[in-house]
Amino acid sequence: MPKTKVAIVGMGTVGSGVARLLLDHGDRTARHAGRVLWLEKAVVRDLSKARAAELPEGVLTDDLDEVLNDPEITVVAQLIGGLEPARTIMLQLLEAGKDIVTANKALLAEHGPELFERARELGRSIAFEASVAGGIPIITNISQCLSANQTLSLEGILNGTSNFIVTQMDVQGMAYEQAVRLAQEKGYAEADPTMDVDGTDAAQKLAILAHLAFGAHASWADIPRVGIDQLDPEDLRFARELGYRIKLLATAHLDDAGLELHVAPTLVRAGTPLAEVQDAFNAVRVVGDAVGPVFYHGLGAGQMPTASAVVADIIDTAVGRTRLTFQTLELFSPVGPPRVRLRAFDELPGRYYLRLHVDDSPGVLGKITGALGRHNVSIASVIQHEPDDRADRNTVPLVVMTHEAPEGAASGAADQIEALPEVVGNVVRLRVKV
Amino acid sequence: MPKTKVAIVGMGTVGSGVARLLLDHGDRTARHAGRVLWLEKAVVRDLSKARAAELPEGVLTDDLDEVLNDPEITVVAQLIGGLEPARTIMLQLLEAGKDIVTANKALLAEHGPELFERARELGRSIAFEASVAGGIPIITNISQCLSANQTLSLEGILNGTSNFIVTQMDVQGMAYEQAVRLAQEKGYAEADPTMDVDGTDAAQKLAILAHLAFGAHASWADIPRVGIDQLDPEDLRFARELGYRIKLLATAHLDDAGLELHVAPTLVRAGTPLAEVQDAFNAVRVVGDAVGPVFYHGLGAGQMPTASAVVADIIDTAVGRTRLTFQTLELFSPVGPPRVRLRAFDELPGRYYLRLHVDDSPGVLGKITGALGRHNVSIASVIQHEPDDRADRNTVPLVVMTHEAPEGAASGAADQIEALPEVVGNVVRLRVKV
Ligand SMILES: NC(=O)c1ccc[n+]([C@@H]2O[C@H](COP(=O)([O-])OP(=O)(O)OC[C@H]3O[C@@H](n4cnc5c(N)ncnc54)[C@H](OP(=O)(O)O)[C@@H]3O)[C@@H](O)[C@H]2O)c1
Ligand SMILES: NC(=O)c1ccc[n+]([C@@H]2O[C@H](COP(=O)([O-])OP(=O)(O)OC[C@H]3O[C@@H](n4cnc5c(N)ncnc54)[C@H](OP(=O)(O)O)[C@@H]3O)[C@@H](O)[C@H]2O)c1
Repeated sequence: MPKTKVAIVGMGTVGSGVARLLLDHGDRTARHAGRVLWLEKAVVRDLSKARAAELPEGVLTDDLDEVLNDPEITVVAQLIGGLEPARTIMLQLLEAGKDIVTANKALLAEHGPELFERARELGRSIAFEASVAGGIPIITNISQCLSANQTLSLEGILNGTSNFIVTQMDVQGMAYEQAVRLAQEKGYAEADPTMDVDGTDAAQKLAILAHLAFGAHASWADIPRVGIDQLDPEDLRFARELGYRIKLLATAHLDDAGLELHVAPTLVRAGTPLAEVQDAFNAVRVVGDAVGPVFYHGLGAGQMPTASAVVADIIDTAVGRTRLTFQTLELFSPVGPPRVRLRAFDELPGRYYLRLHVDDSPGVLGKITGALGRHNVSIASVIQHEPDDRADRNTVPLVVMTHEAPEGAASGAADQIEALPEVVGNVVRLRVKV
Repeated sequence: MPKTKVAIVGMGTVGSGVARLLLDHGDRTARHAGRVLWLEKAVVRDLSKARAAELPEGVLTDDLDEVLNDPEITVVAQLIGGLEPARTIMLQLLEAGKDIVTANKALLAEHGPELFERARELGRSIAFEASVAGGIPIITNISQCLSANQTLSLEGILNGTSNFIVTQMDVQGMAYEQAVRLAQEKGYAEADPTMDVDGTDAAQKLAILAHLAFGAHASWADIPRVGIDQLDPEDLRFARELGYRIKLLATAHLDDAGLELHVAPTLVRAGTPLAEVQDAFNAVRVVGDAVGPVFYHGLGAGQMPTASAVVADIIDTAVGRTRLTFQTLELFSPVGPPRVRLRAFDELPGRYYLRLHVDDSPGVLGKITGALGRHNVSIASVIQHEPDDRADRNTVPLVVMTHEAPEGAASGAADQIEALPEVVGNVVRLRVKV
């Protein structure tokens, strides 16, 4: 049986999982690859640190040159997080003739165009299934399995940390800070979870999927995004009363006007599959013009689900499938102009949930409906809740559900409402999935 | 741009859909394949029959030789149903050097070993994504995306016709015959729906998936199967009361004792994803030892979802990915003995729902629990429903839910209960998904 020599660079959570799959299940990978996948080297910074995988003598090294200078190592799983030295190492590996597998979506989001261009120039490939949605093989599904389709829409719960936190707040009634701490204890959230909870991570993943599925040239930084870090438990409760759950939803929707892209906490009708995604799970719903709706659900992160995706990529790369796919992959590709126009956020249609606290006095509702009317935002329903006492004022919480209106109009109306003297505090405005 | 010449044999529902995708969306397929997919010939029996796709001059023919003798046609979508002439034509195409794409699972179930062996000998490939679960790309997902895993279990709703019929009976309260007629009107069921409703079709699909996922050499005919053709609306109602739905479930479950395989109407806990699969949708839940649970949901059949899978296979074949995958594909493969032992049906563990009608007299329950006890089947709960009057006897419906017990024990107990003089009619026994 032929042999492909593989190296891992970065033996953290994911790297150790990959090593375990390669070492403990060599029969399995050999059967599926038709060749032995031989773990030749594992590169770390600190040789003395304990690793979660037991490596055979001579595999562990702190010298990247042992990989770069070994022409027999043809596939490298690059599993260092962050931008540097990950970027530089990736370029060195490509120059040295290696095909790359990576799980680092932050690196791709930031330096994808440069890395992919260099790989294409050098006739090398980069596989990145593990970079989006962990155990859900959404990259292969979009770029290969659904390739007969024009994707019409894609909606995803792409950040497991956020979903875990929101689930704890929603189902267990936890406070935000407490839920974040639990996520950190369980290893779902990093010491600094900012990129997860502020929507950055989901936007980076959505940018990759939007490239692949729509041929959109979207930089993650241009994708309008709101995280869950400002989510108020009160809104989870009101949403529930209305028959919704709140999920951090990444949305891509194509119509004649162009492509709609955003990440935001969104009211999703309870009982629908996306609404029922719990804890650290991810889910993606894709609609293709031929296949119709396809729904995927699986673990969004974690050592072994992520390692599963990395090793599938290693097999695909060793076998030669990745090279074939990479040649036509519509990602960070310079071939021609973008195929779709990105719609301006202001013009995007949406239904909205508005929640505010107002003085419990006559005439307030009239002013609010007036502000909405001036922006052509029509009201679907208004619910006035039990009075609450805050800051010595006798206020009532008010929830307004709107009909469809452009984002800009809804935001303009909300600003005007917020400026009303009868309104206490800010107006919370969330999108409602249609 | 290079060009791959493609032919379709069989221009029925699926064939016409494939032609439409190739003809109307040539830009799309070219972009994803990096080559033009050129529909050169479409072979039919009857040239005068109207077709659901408009074909350019010269494409339609009733002469298979125009495909066999054209060496430039390298990929053929073989979309004739049934066993013959489909089998003979497939062999002719392979001998003529064509790579094949097919949607015909009945043909694979019956003649897969012969066809795959011939393809391997000739260095050709057979792609068959469309043969299982229509729009859900489960073949590629199992054989490629999840290839780093040992599959631990696989559960699927694989027959859209049955699921449509059961949904109508369950949700709309339709009678079985009425639901079958509606399925036929909607084009979900064929004129003779026997193979769909008696579990054959689901068993054929399960056999293919069990080969791929577990290396099991299972012939569909050996898979124990019960269809929905005997399903009583009364049981749908009682199951609902107990918090379950009844679904025609195809199950594969691996443990130390071997592989459990069967197709049966099964009580599935309401609210879980499989229980909520409606109408003609299919769903598959796979558990891998690394990735954990992954759930797929999509349209199980229909012209365009099936054509989507066929065209993805055509692209994969034209690009060269199929050839690479086919080389190591664990299906109808002579390489070595089966990797798993198939468990005898009698020894399979399960929980059961038993429903019977008994005389409303004292002592009956004792006899029933006695029969179960003699077979070591312990009872989880008993529900006695309102008395009903049937055949001049004053009877009551009784539902018994058991704890886990071997299939053989449960069936023995049910037979003994059925023979009791106080029991009227037969004992319905259904599996409960654990
Ligand atoms: N964890 C997940 O569930 C998950 C899921 C999807 C994607 N990812 C992505 O996968 C990547 C790795 O994540 P992780 O969770 O495995 O991170 P991690 O546990 O922090 O591991 C990163 C590893 O990289 C090593 N490293 C850093 N600089 C290095 C250098 N110059 N040379 C050699 N090794 C170096 C670190 O070495 P030391 O141990 O010596 O510090 C560490 O072992 C990240 O891009 C992450 O976003 C992770
Ligand atoms: N329909 C679905 O949703 C679906 C889903 C998954 C898989 N499949 C599978 O896909 C296959 C095709 O299904 P379908 O629904 O398209 O069936 P269909 O509508 O009955 O079409 C079959 C076609 O084969 C043609 N044919 C039969 N013998 C032929 C011959 N000797 N030479 C040339 N053409 C011949 C028939 O020709 P005439 O038109 O001249 O009679 C007919 O057009 C079947 O194996 C089925 O199980 C179907």
